[in-house]
Amino acid sequence: MITLLTDFGSTDYFVGAMKGTILSINPEAKIIDITHEVPAHDIEAGAFTLLSSYSWFPKNTIHLAVVDPGVGSDRRPILVSTEKYFFIGPDNGLFGYIYDREPGRRVFHLNDDKYFLKPISSTFHGRDVFAPVAATLSKGEEPQRLGSEIKNFKRLAPLSTERLTNGSIKGRIIHIDHFGNCITNISSDELDDDMIRDGAYIQVCGREIREFRSHFEAGESTPAAVFAVWGSAGFLEIVAFQLSAAVELGAVRGTHVFVETR
Amino acid sequence: MITLLTDFGSTDYFVGAMKGTILSINPEAKIIDITHEVPAHDIEAGAFTLLSSYSWFPKNTIHLAVVDPGVGSDRRPILVSTEKYFFIGPDNGLFGYIYDREPGRRVFHLNDDKYFLKPISSTFHGRDVFAPVAATLSKGEEPQRLGSEIKNFKRLAPLSTERLTNGSIKGRIIHIDHFGNCITNISSDELDDDMIRDGAYIQVCGREIREFRSHFEAGESTPAAVFAVWGSAGFLEIVAFQLSAAVELGAVRGTHVFVETR
Amino acid sequence: MITLLTDFGSTDYFVGAMKGTILSINPEAKIIDITHEVPAHDIEAGAFTLLSSYSWFPKNTIHLAVVDPGVGSDRRPILVSTEKYFFIGPDNGLFGYIYDREPGRRVFHLNDDKYFLKPISSTFHGRDVFAPVAATLSKGEEPQRLGSEIKNFKRLAPLSTERLTNGSIKGRIIHIDHFGNCITNISSDELDDDMIRDGAYIQVCGREIREFRSHFEAGESTPAAVFAVWGSAGFLEIVAFQLSAAVELGAVRGTHVFVETR
Repeated sequence: MITLLTDFGSTDYFVGAMKGTILSINPEAKIIDITHEVPAHDIEAGAFTLLSSYSWFPKNTIHLAVVDPGVGSDRRPILVSTEKYFFIGPDNGLFGYIYDREPGRRVFHLNDDKYFLKPISSTFHGRDVFAPVAATLSKGEEPQRLGSEIKNFKRLAPLSTERLTNGSIKGRIIHIDHFGNCITNISSDELDDDMIRDGAYIQVCGREIREFRSHFEAGESTPAAVFAVWGSAGFLEIVAFQLSAAVELGAVRGTHVFVETR
Repeated sequence: MITLLTDFGSTDYFVGAMKGTILSINPEAKIIDITHEVPAHDIEAGAFTLLSSYSWFPKNTIHLAVVDPGVGSDRRPILVSTEKYFFIGPDNGLFGYIYDREPGRRVFHLNDDKYFLKPISSTFHGRDVFAPVAATLSKGEEPQRLGSEIKNFKRLAPLSTERLTNGSIKGRIIHIDHFGNCITNISSDELDDDMIRDGAYIQVCGREIREFRSHFEAGESTPAAVFAVWGSAGFLEIVAFQLSAAVELGAVRGTHVFVETR
Repeated sequence: MITLLTDFGSTDYFVGAMKGTILSINPEAKIIDITHEVPAHDIEAGAFTLLSSYSWFPKNTIHLAVVDPGVGSDRRPILVSTEKYFFIGPDNGLFGYIYDREPGRRVFHLNDDKYFLKPISSTFHGRDVFAPVAATLSKGEEPQRLGSEIKNFKRLAPLSTERLTNGSIKGRIIHIDHFGNCITNISSDELDDDMIRDGAYIQVCGREIREFRSHFEAGESTPAAVFAVWGSAGFLEIVAFQLSAAVELGAVRGTHVFVETR
């Protein structure tokens, strides 16, 4: 089973060429699209989407992820092997949120070009490098035969928040989803029910949000009200029932979010 | 075989997480995307798209459909079982166009949480409730073991038209497709060939449409002409060759369409 | 294995209905989406996307392609059989770039309606004609039993460039991809490394482009610089690192591109 997560969009030949390459090497491969609509070149967005979806797949799934502005440069192609999963893609931080979550992690530099298509283009390693390696791995090849283990792989700034001297939590919006819900990097480890019961509230875009709900539809407030819920990716989300909270607030990815505690 | 129809969009982790959940429970499941681009929260649009696609699939297909603005509230998760198909999703009218079409229909309230993921989020039942139930069903579980039969499931205003006292048919545009074709709720049961031969014509957006064609390209009229065809979903469509009829007319979903008969 | 390439978009029931039809006839079929986002009615765009993806698939893949503004008219449904692949779709030039590339090519007019769904709609041959024929072929039916061989199938203006009397190459932008990269019809057969070394440069949209790079990220120029690379579809591309070259240049599909040689 091979999943695909890219910023290739759905309008071009890119995804088709990758799928064809995989199936030419392993016709039995089961290919599952996660998304091809990661914003172009946006490694952090790709890393978040991967983080929120990879762990639902069965053991031994190969996650092939390509958000690769440095394709053709000296950024390395890598394979990440963990107890449960494999990840294949560029060494640019795309797997940065996974390194510390999955036990048994090893990272291999894919430096044996006998597994690549020839000639290798310098602009489409998704097709010429990553797809054939994923297909080869799916046929049972050992990860350590596909490359050399490395330790200096590229990490990503962590998703964690800051704690200010006055006790406030300073977080940020890490993703705005299809519905306009604003996903923050604030987890329930940092903001617990006691704090909410004691009157913690959110400051974002000049607004104060004091309502924490259990789901999108609850509450008797006016429809346009913006409120907070614990979202399905495990983070605090700022949402508006049947409206885009991002539009209501004027929020974008990166917007700061403060939780004021008493 | 499990089909997916949602309003989740293609840019997020939602679809990936659902697919992963299904495949973790039943790695042999064959997952087919119908669409994830139902307009957000638009139950009627989802119901129409499902209506127009479900019946082409083989017997025993499980149609998993999630357009679910009330997720986490007290709206019920349901399973609809018919002679030929299964449908899984929220009890909010999404299956409203199907109830009276498929023989042997029974509806079950999915109230046994042993089939759900734990902990159940309150915002993503697509992943935590519907996907695991669909996967369990695809492994051969009996529908009646997954929930309790109910009779008071939610219906949807029917697709039928009104007949005015002067004999006119009052219909509406129920869908505007990717090409800008305007699909009405007028079927050939209501508007037959004799009526067309006798001079029936359409009034919509202040325009009179007197041309009924057999397909998009026929006729010698100017390219911008708007005309009517019997569409592939079984309804009268108002179209314009290689143009968006919706743009030409200024029509939106819900726009009234009158057929004047003599 | 059956691939799908259409201009149906991803929001409607069209793709679902096609997939269901295929799977009803051959439940074992493996369906692979190439894209459903070919610009509406744009045969040339569909032909280019097919050209750039079909050859990566394994032998015997059936490529089902539907960009079909003339559906329901007298344009013929066809099956193209080659040594390695099958192509099914309308005879309107969609396979125009493939005819001279694949050895053993034969073209069949699909004129035996016993393989079609009944009743055949006049607006959706993707579902009623092409899908059932593809499914039947995937079950092992012989191509020559599905239709009658024809020789007068429709071709497409070739992708080749013009050579002007002053030695310049006159080409055009044949595709703008998801990233805004401008793919030209200039191949390395026409513009070789010697010519580039001797000072060949590009004129497009009133700009001179003198920089040829090996990949997107190379070079020390300012980020907004527009430059040329050999793209993964085998053609010269005009690109801008992490920016849309199409926007930078104001280029559209069809924009002329001149290569001035010394």
